[in-house]
Order: sequence, then C-alpha cells, then structure tokens
Amino acid sequence: MTFHIGIGPNNRKSCYFDATVAAGVACFSVYNHMFIPAHFGDPEAEYDALMTGVAMWDVAAQRQVEIAGPDAFELIQYLTTRDMTKTRVGQGRYVPICNHEGLLINDPVLLMLEAGRYWLSIADSDIALWASAIAAERGMDVRVHEPDVSPLAIQGPKAERVVAELFGDWVKELSYFGFRQTELRSIPLVLARSGWSKQGGFELYLQDGTRGTELWDMVQAAGARHGIRPGAPNDRERIESGLVSYGADGRLQVNPCNPFEIGLGGLVDFAKPEDFVGKAALQRIKAEGAARRRVRYVIEGAPLGAFEHALPVLTGKGVSVGVLSEAIYSQRFGANIGVGMISTQMDETGETLHVEMAEGGRRVEIRAEFGDG
Amino acid sequence: MTFHIGIGPNNRKSCYFDATVAAGVACFSVYNHMFIPAHFGDPEAEYDALMTGVAMWDVAAQRQVEIAGPDAFELIQYLTTRDMTKTRVGQGRYVPICNHEGLLINDPVLLMLEAGRYWLSIADSDIALWASAIAAERGMDVRVHEPDVSPLAIQGPKAERVVAELFGDWVKELSYFGFRQTELRSIPLVLARSGWSKQGGFELYLQDGTRGTELWDMVQAAGARHGIRPGAPNDRERIESGLVSYGADGRLQVNPCNPFEIGLGGLVDFAKPEDFVGKAALQRIKAEGAARRRVRYVIEGAPLGAFEHALPVLTGKGVSVGVLSEAIYSQRFGANIGVGMISTQMDETGETLHVEMAEGGRRVEIRAEFGDG
Repeated sequence: MTFHIGIGPNNRKSCYFDATVAAGVACFSVYNHMFIPAHFGDPEAEYDALMTGVAMWDVAAQRQVEIAGPDAFELIQYLTTRDMTKTRVGQGRYVPICNHEGLLINDPVLLMLEAGRYWLSIADSDIALWASAIAAERGMDVRVHEPDVSPLAIQGPKAERVVAELFGDWVKELSYFGFRQTELRSIPLVLARSGWSKQGGFELYLQDGTRGTELWDMVQAAGARHGIRPGAPNDRERIESGLVSYGADGRLQVNPCNPFEIGLGGLVDFAKPEDFVGKAALQRIKAEGAARRRVRYVIEGAPLGAFEHALPVLTGKGVSVGVLSEAIYSQRFGANIGVGMISTQMDETGETLHVEMAEGGRRVEIRAEFGDG
Repeated sequence: MTFHIGIGPNNRKSCYFDATVAAGVACFSVYNHMFIPAHFGDPEAEYDALMTGVAMWDVAAQRQVEIAGPDAFELIQYLTTRDMTKTRVGQGRYVPICNHEGLLINDPVLLMLEAGRYWLSIADSDIALWASAIAAERGMDVRVHEPDVSPLAIQGPKAERVVAELFGDWVKELSYFGFRQTELRSIPLVLARSGWSKQGGFELYLQDGTRGTELWDMVQAAGARHGIRPGAPNDRERIESGLVSYGADGRLQVNPCNPFEIGLGGLVDFAKPEDFVGKAALQRIKAEGAARRRVRYVIEGAPLGAFEHALPVLTGKGVSVGVLSEAIYSQRFGANIGVGMISTQMDETGETLHVEMAEGGRRVEIRAEFGDG
C-alpha cells in the first residue's frame, strides 16, 4: 500500500527541498518536524550507488542543537553519558543522551566548534526543548537553540573523490568524525567525515539556508562524473551494518531502551567526576544487569516486502521475549535480516522463535553478525 | 506536486491505522512521531461532512502526557501559564505552555482525571521529555509518561446525535471541554465534548490500543445513517474559524510566538501565587508590549492551490513585516483566507502589503474577522 504525504506548514521544508524535488524525489518521511526524502523512485539503484559509488542525501532534518555560553561545557558534561573533558575542537564524538530514568532519548554526534560552543547533531526528538529546560532549571548561563544548519551527506566509496574535488586534498586527512569550518564558493559550512552509513563519506553542515539549492547543485555537478545519485539514509545498508536508528529501533514512547541493552554501555562513563542526567538510574540498571540485549535476526521464508512497524518476537507458546524493530530482504546476505532486542533469559534456551506476519508465522534466528556470503 | 510517504518504524502507527486504511485513507502526515490521516481522497466532501453533517477523525497522534503522583498538582501549576487551582475533575481546560523564555511550546487541553492525576492532550512537540526533565530537576515526586490513550474525534453538527446513540442522552449535558470516564461495550474510554473545530463534537479518548478497529467500526456503524464520513483535522475550517495550530502557525524552531502576540495573553495569569515556567520572561514581554499580533489575512487573486509553507508578508519596498502562516481558498467566504502575524508597527500605516508566490506577488489585506458573505 502506498499513500501520499501532506506537504503543508505543520512540518518544515528542508533548505534542499526544492533541489530534491527537481532531482525527482518520490517519497518523504518526517524527522524532527521536517520533511526528509525517503527515496527517489529507484531504491535498488540508490542502494548500489551507496555501496559501490557515491550518493547524496538531504539530511537537513538531522538538526543541530547549539549550546553556547560560559556554562556550555558544564551543560554538555551534564547532558551526556560520556566524559566530555577530552573533547576537542575539530573532532566529533558519538554521545548517547539519556533521560533521568536512564532511557535513551537521542544519540547525536557532538561537535565542539570552539571553547564554549557545541552542536549536537541529533536524531528525531526535541532535544533543544529538553536541554534548554535543564539549563534553565539549573540556572546555567548558556543559550540552547537550533541554528540555521542543514547537513548534506555524501556517502559511498567514491565520496572522498567528490569531496576532494570540491574542497581540496586536505579532506583526505580528516579522521573519522573529524571536521573543519570551511567554505565553498563563499558558502559557509562545516565539513565532517561522518554520515549514517558504514560506506564512508562526509557531511556538509551548510550554515546558510538560503543557499541550499546552490550547494546541492555544486555537489551534483562535482559528483556527476563519479555517477553520484540522490538518495536517502538507507535502511537496508543500516540493517546490514547494524547501525542504531533512534526512532526505528525504539524511542522513549515505544520500546524504550537503555544504553546497556542497545549496545552503547561502553559509552556510559560512571568514572567522570561530574554528575550527569540518568546516572543514578543507569548505575541501578547496570547493577541489576540488562534484561535485554540488542541482536541481529534472520527471518526465514520468501523475501520480505515493506516492513511497516516493529513486531514482537515470540516463543512457541506465543510469549513475547523480544522485538524485531526493522527487517528487510538483503541480496548481499541472501536472507531477510533485521535488528531488535531479545530477553537475556533466552540466551541459554535455544528455543525456536517466530514473528507473526500478515501471511502467518515466520521463524527467526538470532545472529551475532550476518557475515558475508 | 504529490509525493508518497514512507510507512516504516521511524514513526508510529495509530491504533486506528488499519481502520483508516480500510476506510480508504489517501494521505498521511506525521504528528508527535505518529502517522495521522490528512485526507481520504475527497477534501470537499470531508469539509461538507464537518460543516453540515458529521465526520470521524483518527487523532490518536494528539498524545496524552500523564502527570501523576503526590506532586502532580505542583508540577501542573508550574508548567502552565494559567492558575490551575480551580481545575476540577470532569472539566478540561485549554492551557498554553511556554518555555523559560516565554515562547509557546504547546497548547494542550488539560484533563484532571482525579486528584493527583492529569492528562495534557498535546499538540506536536515532545512535552513528555520536557516536563519529565523539569520534574526530575526539581526533585518532584511525580511520574510523567505517555499512557495508552488514543483520541478519536467525532465532529460536526450531527456529532451529538451519533454520540448520544452510542453512549446515551447524558452526553447532551456535557459542557464544552466537559468529560467523563466511561466505556462502550467494555472498551474503556474518556468521553469529552471537545475537538479541533468550531463545528461542535466530541473526542473519545480510547484507553486500550488493541481495540482501535473495534471502536472505529462502532462509531462508523452508529454514524452511518447520519452520513458520517472519515476525515481529518480540517485546515480550511480551522482557518475560517481562526483556531491556533501549534506547528503550522509557528513552533519553537520556526516563527516562535509568545502567548501575547498569538492571542493567548488572557491565559497568562501573573496573579497566581506560584512561580511558573517563563513567568519572568513573560512579564518582560508584556511590559515591553508585543511586537506582533495575530491577524487574519485575505489574499487577492485566483483561488489558491496547495499552500506548502509560511510566507513573509512584505511592504511595497520588500521589507518583511509579518508572516502568512497558512492560507486556503474558502468558498464560504468567497476568498483566499489565511492566518498569521503582523508587526504592531503596521497598525497605523495602512500600507499596502503583499506576499510573493510562485506566480508572482499577491496583495494581502488584514482582517479582524472574515465575516460571513
């Protein structure tokens, strides 16, 4: 089944919206109250461009929450589970953010732009609202807001060539999550080696929303001879690669997850001297031991079609012992693959598990990795 | 231009999703991270049903934030700009919510279910995240969460007949925003005289998400002989009626509004003894005088087509002095009508104003009311 989307002022348009329409976008979703392209009509070709060539994605909906002012470091240290002391300008860090109950509410990349000024490059939840409330309640001297910043991702094995042609060979020296403030024909932006895939690439954090089409067209032109294609954050690749998707894998309102069960426990630093949001709850959760763990699933049977929502993973007796968050048919692995959670009580049982789909039950198996071939 | 929407686990399905698909939903939007029907393929007939008959809307995306516990009243009093002292069980209240800077971040209806337990029936922003942070930072003994509650709206002049047939004649005694905990063939729900239109009607706050299709079908069956139609919150009617739409008219991230300029200043109660979020900022804003005020616009020229995003309202010299948030052609008023903001400095000038649309400039005029005919 396919449905249209209402394009109206309830959700925002990205500054690349017109450019993506000109490029033939066929399908949108909504992320951080903003329309985000979902595909351009040829998902197979878009996947192939990401895996073997180069793709460009409007990810402006990955909004930035800027935290700036005398107490900015203190607030960042309090909001995240990692020790931010060693954070330095030019090196991004993946930072889980939990609420006071120790549940994941976002998993942004943090960019320290200068002393006292940070961006959180966020997944889909209103972190500016949440962070500004905490700052105000604690009487911190800091400004929390969403600046005019709109990331454009260039992803895939040929991404570096395209970006080097645009910016110069210095981009090859950028470490993973490394970034630099720069410009492109006077368009101000931050260039980072980052992006929501494991195929390598960069994100251009455009800092002037009036120049979205101009930047899009420049990237398109530079990428043309490398076969660049417009696309979107790719669900198949992310499931194959095991990337976390806050929102799809769980969100505060549906299947809430703590960092230990979702595989981010290593990024909870109880040793840092300062308190942080959720610390007491996370200590309790850790002491009790996680009740679930993140796994990969293989789902038997014919290639899956559209996977619209999470399904409970059931024992033979129909008891729910886990969740299949998202699944897709992978030609690369020749199987239906998915990600989700399983109760740690199932670790020893070897019990047969299944999910109920429209056409009936399908057996699922837990995998540590999918493994090629 | 029309585009498809990606139906996947990044956003939630309403518990009425399957029922709306069976009823022929054609277009969705996303609200509070949940798919919400936008129309069923015949906007004219859907508007007519609302204005002259009865319509049923899946508004499950209007989520409830439950605040419960010993400090629930104290938290509610702190989060809202109104004095909650006189709130009583069974009578909902429209309560603006501002952030610490005095900017509107939501405009829910509050339902006091019993002493120490409230629902905020919210517009599109993560209020549970925000409110729980404030509660935790203030050390309050209260639980903030999103319960399994999914409103189904029945709106239009014949709504009362349908609801009376379902529940009995007692529903006729309900005051505006009055509500009662009840059930329908053992389905637990709260019935309220409310809904996002000025055509009258009710909302059924279903409290068991497994019974969405069952409830939808019962309403459909009871409404059949009154010509009930599936529909959705109706932009034309809301613009004609001047209802506020948090999100479309402005949100924290785009065109942020304070309550004084958006016409909700009467709901800011500085006299209440307790402090509340944004109080100091709101006192400052009030003392300085609002820089803008909410207005209705008439836009000259041929009937407007799709209105996709807010436009600046410009003087002859091209200076932005306001915003047209949303506009639509109204047959009822025989004109293109819209809502938005204008600088209070323009009150005396009588200067000619216009907006730039794809096909060129269009003159706009400010109106206090549209007035019939």
